[in-house]
Amino acid sequence: MLSEFSLIERYFSKPATRGRTPAAQKSGKAASATLGIGDDCALLAPKRGQQLAISTDMLVSGRHFFPDVSPFALGAKALAVNLSDLAAMGAAPRAFTLALSMPKAEESWLQAFSDGLFHMANAHGCELIGGDTTGGPHVSISITVFGDVPAARALRRDGARAGDDIWVSGRLGNARAGLGVLRKEWSIEDAASKAIAIKALEQPEPRVALGVALRGVAHAALDLSDGLAGDLLHILKRSNMRAAVDVDLVPRSGVIDALPAVAQLPCILAGGDDYELCFTAPVEARAKIERLGARLGILVTRIGTIEGLAVPTDTPAIDWRNHAGPVSFTASGYDHFHAD
Amino acid sequence: MLSEFSLIERYFSKPATRGRTPAAQKSGKAASATLGIGDDCALLAPKRGQQLAISTDMLVSGRHFFPDVSPFALGAKALAVNLSDLAAMGAAPRAFTLALSMPKAEESWLQAFSDGLFHMANAHGCELIGGDTTGGPHVSISITVFGDVPAARALRRDGARAGDDIWVSGRLGNARAGLGVLRKEWSIEDAASKAIAIKALEQPEPRVALGVALRGVAHAALDLSDGLAGDLLHILKRSNMRAAVDVDLVPRSGVIDALPAVAQLPCILAGGDDYELCFTAPVEARAKIERLGARLGILVTRIGTIEGLAVPTDTPAIDWRNHAGPVSFTASGYDHFHAD
Repeated sequence: MLSEFSLIERYFSKPATRGRTPAAQKSGKAASATLGIGDDCALLAPKRGQQLAISTDMLVSGRHFFPDVSPFALGAKALAVNLSDLAAMGAAPRAFTLALSMPKAEESWLQAFSDGLFHMANAHGCELIGGDTTGGPHVSISITVFGDVPAARALRRDGARAGDDIWVSGRLGNARAGLGVLRKEWSIEDAASKAIAIKALEQPEPRVALGVALRGVAHAALDLSDGLAGDLLHILKRSNMRAAVDVDLVPRSGVIDALPAVAQLPCILAGGDDYELCFTAPVEARAKIERLGARLGILVTRIGTIEGLAVPTDTPAIDWRNHAGPVSFTASGYDHFHAD
Repeated sequence: MLSEFSLIERYFSKPATRGRTPAAQKSGKAASATLGIGDDCALLAPKRGQQLAISTDMLVSGRHFFPDVSPFALGAKALAVNLSDLAAMGAAPRAFTLALSMPKAEESWLQAFSDGLFHMANAHGCELIGGDTTGGPHVSISITVFGDVPAARALRRDGARAGDDIWVSGRLGNARAGLGVLRKEWSIEDAASKAIAIKALEQPEPRVALGVALRGVAHAALDLSDGLAGDLLHILKRSNMRAAVDVDLVPRSGVIDALPAVAQLPCILAGGDDYELCFTAPVEARAKIERLGARLGILVTRIGTIEGLAVPTDTPAIDWRNHAGPVSFTASGYDHFHAD
């Protein structure tokens, strides 16, 4: 069994190509942090005129991932869900810290986990600058991520305005469809569809480029980690607005058609783990956003409208509709303290 | 049972007096972070001309604390051990994030935990700017802390020079003595001594003011979390030096005299959880450091000397001595992956 210090040094240190941005690797320049793993603290400053966007997430075995999940996929996802928070803020990734507890130090697991972690880190120029590894009864992963964003252009949750379009990236519900397969809530016959669903769950791609591109374009944004219904409500509450969403417009893949009819809407609207962006923007920005999506190769779809409150009696809420009229849907999103 | 979002809002949000520095509370000014809990990311920038010092630690129930520990003390200690890393860098506390997993949301436990956490935070002007709470099989706490430090004056581990004095703050070994009491490895008859030992374990006080005062004075520094023997070795390895330490000079309290003779040196030299500073400084700084200690009311003690390596055969190591000659001591510090 390895000691704590050997663990950090062997799997999470920064040899030539690790923990450095692709650009820094090419140029041979020093990584962006002044001082990384190996001292009491790392030192980091945002780029000139910008601020550091900071977010933290914790993933616990048996709660956020199955104990037998691929450690490579887990390492990548642990960082991806944090990069998704940066994307939602319009921040460009810079660095992250990792705290990891596990029952014992299995070298093959650690190697694959760190390979997945650095694969995701290098793809987004995000450097590991500090960490803590410890024994514990279960695998638990806590990452804190840092990105650069000009303060005045950060994509906040409280900026939605009446008349804004509501947009989402990608297609929703695939990850929840995959979770249902692994939990045997349902099965998906078609092998390709099944693979798409499980990949959506285990290997989400954070929308970092889209988030940065939406600076100065979107009025409000967040990432969909708990499901559209619950997450959009955060924007509405912070912005003190209502929303009307056309359920027929919410983008879904063919995978969803393979599910039992009763499961389809819950997956799309309240599935969780989508890690797509939901954002609001003025009507005048429609063409620009369509062009952005095309340039980045990311589907962007208008699904509804932000509406002002009829104060004082009105409260932030979502009116779900389809071509036939109102749709009854009240699921409030994935909640980590509820049964799951 | 509370939902995740209620948890964050109820116990870890920022009402009038929470999560703001005492100065900010008095003046009524906004807290230092632009955007805190409630958005995808917090926004933070170091003070002009400084860098952010960043450190992360994870505490796991049954490993770093007993499940029945006072939640108030645990909340305070969870932040204190991180503030200790800032102190070791000479950084002034600014902000922190919290990731917390627990089996279920017990309101009385959470109230006491957050009270302890904010008690420590407010004492050091350190603001909670983001967090994640989740269910999990055991209590696990991961904090990432941020402080300001002028980059060129940060207290690093690699700055020790031949001829430097080696200093420690406070008295070592009390926390390990207290751990032994709780584990029934030994007992301490005297009630006052026993209370001192357990308080040292459960309520460490980070040496933040001393760390900041040592900027530009100390050549190298770290905090003693794993025991003097193992931690001093980190300075020696990073600085490529040897050390001679006089065991008789290592400051200890009367508590240690109450322990079995065989346990005394291990507690003092390799006990862990001291959260005192160990630093090196040139001989010319002796009077200044003594004055610093007196002004801050913190005992500072010279325990040895940094010695250059006889390259190429020599390796970083500690020569333990006392008044009678060499002392055999090889414990390498508390290691979280070893039995404890």
